Amino acid sequence: MLESFVLREEDAVRVNHEELREVTTALFQKVGVPSDDAALAADVLLMADIRGVDSHGVSNMLRNYLTGYQTGRIKPLPEWRVVRDRPSTANIDADEGLGIIIAPKAMEMAIEKAKKTGMGVVTMGRCGHVGMAAYHAMMALPHDMVGVCMSAAPPQVLPTFGAEPRLGTNPIAVAVPALDEAPFVLDIATSVVAVNKFRIAKRLGAILPPGMVADMEGTPIMEAGPVPDEFLSLPAGSLRELGSHKGYGLACVVEILSTVIGGFGFAARNTRESPGGFAHYVAAYDIDAFSDVGEFKQTMDDFLRTLKSTKPAPGHDRVLVPGQLEAENTVERTTTGIPLHKEVVEWFRSTCAELDVPCSL
Amino acid sequence: MLESFVLREEDAVRVNHEELREVTTALFQKVGVPSDDAALAADVLLMADIRGVDSHGVSNMLRNYLTGYQTGRIKPLPEWRVVRDRPSTANIDADEGLGIIIAPKAMEMAIEKAKKTGMGVVTMGRCGHVGMAAYHAMMALPHDMVGVCMSAAPPQVLPTFGAEPRLGTNPIAVAVPALDEAPFVLDIATSVVAVNKFRIAKRLGAILPPGMVADMEGTPIMEAGPVPDEFLSLPAGSLRELGSHKGYGLACVVEILSTVIGGFGFAARNTRESPGGFAHYVAAYDIDAFSDVGEFKQTMDDFLRTLKSTKPAPGHDRVLVPGQLEAENTVERTTTGIPLHKEVVEWFRSTCAELDVPCSL
Repeated sequence: MLESFVLREEDAVRVNHEELREVTTALFQKVGVPSDDAALAADVLLMADIRGVDSHGVSNMLRNYLTGYQTGRIKPLPEWRVVRDRPSTANIDADEGLGIIIAPKAMEMAIEKAKKTGMGVVTMGRCGHVGMAAYHAMMALPHDMVGVCMSAAPPQVLPTFGAEPRLGTNPIAVAVPALDEAPFVLDIATSVVAVNKFRIAKRLGAILPPGMVADMEGTPIMEAGPVPDEFLSLPAGSLRELGSHKGYGLACVVEILSTVIGGFGFAARNTRESPGGFAHYVAAYDIDAFSDVGEFKQTMDDFLRTLKSTKPAPGHDRVLVPGQLEAENTVERTTTGIPLHKEVVEWFRSTCAELDVPCSL
Repeated sequence: MLESFVLREEDAVRVNHEELREVTTALFQKVGVPSDDAALAADVLLMADIRGVDSHGVSNMLRNYLTGYQTGRIKPLPEWRVVRDRPSTANIDADEGLGIIIAPKAMEMAIEKAKKTGMGVVTMGRCGHVGMAAYHAMMALPHDMVGVCMSAAPPQVLPTFGAEPRLGTNPIAVAVPALDEAPFVLDIATSVVAVNKFRIAKRLGAILPPGMVADMEGTPIMEAGPVPDEFLSLPAGSLRELGSHKGYGLACVVEILSTVIGGFGFAARNTRESPGGFAHYVAAYDIDAFSDVGEFKQTMDDFLRTLKSTKPAPGHDRVLVPGQLEAENTVERTTTGIPLHKEVVEWFRSTCAELDVPCSL
């Protein structure tokens, strides 16, 4: 599917990731974000670009974040605080700080809790966008832990049989360390496709396969075609017959464990009262609390290799494991640069000029 | 989808659930299960029948469990033990005890840990089948907790693009208390459909919609038709374009957090060495560790009502929430009885006669 969204070579400019990081950090600082937080925010965006998750990298997200700071929707100096705290859990009121900055701090807390009790879970609400959820889950990896991140977003997705959006794309990310294999990193929207990706698809003129979106009455569109001007987003599974109640149900779980559990209402209601507003969940499992870490990593290698060596079905050349393409992209993009649409590079140049930020791109 | 699998009235015999419980308990005792554990096992099966989850009730599962005890595959008196224990986590070697008996004990431990630390997670391996995963998750409800149960089964399901089964149907269940609304209870296989349900569908001569199964080469069958004699099971999403990598990835997560993390290998390898063998994960989140329980339940009611009052898409009369149909079934079946296929009632009678167990059915 994503293949059809790939940036055409003639539209692409390859940009060095360190230069891109520098400019991105400077832009965050310019809108009032302290230097440590600005570097962190840039790191989250850049990791998405480096891993090939363009939907959550600078092209799609940075403008939105900067506008948020400029209009006051996101606070550069939020007074975030822990509202409840137990040995293995905490809940944070993020005071409208940006999720890509707050979630890593929450994940650090979860990791500390996991060291002490075996498991740590931290929720946060009244928060901005979380970026690529896998970033936060992957923070667990160097600690020999399994990391989880879920994020509840404003309503864009239909419930099964429904004609009105009630849930966000509500992604689930899980990161698991291996030994010599790349880590297992799953990062999936609970909708058919993250809505972000439709923006890219539309920009690139991609043709969508059947079952990707519904019409404005809620009926799934079962013919292939370009991204419609107006559409509604379906839960993963597309149709009830094929399991759309699974995507719908998991989106509810993300909403409950991120937003409702923290006392932050729920997205469909919050949006009526005040637009925007995300809530997130991060967790860390200390592998040593369950079994031997060395054996675990060896078993993960065996497990991943068993999956990768599965005989492919006709028409396919290999079976992938979650995180494999992203690991391949990381090698490629840190060497040859991040491919940005030339319009995105133009945007960087003009925004830097406007905000009086030096731009090496 | 499930509608097409419903038992035809002319084949059904309505059986009182308490009589069915009594006979089921007696049969477990007859194969050596202690009386408390026999009553627990019967309770797990009966809750599936009462909630209308026939795939995991007595019809489909009891014969399998009894045979397991009779052949020595399942131990009636397992010496299960906690191999690692931390304040919020534990890992159990179940010594081939039946999952429907071990998992509730593990969930009790998780609940105790959640009371103390906010969160409890218990994994178990070298274990028998878990039954309806929702049973264990729902144990959290009276404690004002969110319950989770996941179960990793022997390989039956293809990875995306693969031609060989590598993962189980690996269900995920989540139960969340509400105030006046029925609790939110999600219980979904990470495959398109639990393989159990195909057995029922075949018995009932149901027609499967496109995308439900793959042929023996791994290619999804995209025409409607009866359950084939031979087929391979697809991950939820059916096709890569529609998100089958999500079902596949979540099945991996269930495998990792149930089997691999506990040091019990992984299903695809275990099966080659020794057939059978499940691993499970249960978790409890103490809602009070995150926010006010009373407000939480009120918000859950509001959330569920908002979902249920969503305008339906053309051709549908209502939007359901997870657990709603099962709550409706519970009211109906505890009043009018459990509908069993007449062949199942015959099986009970002959099995009871064989094992010298009184049978009131």
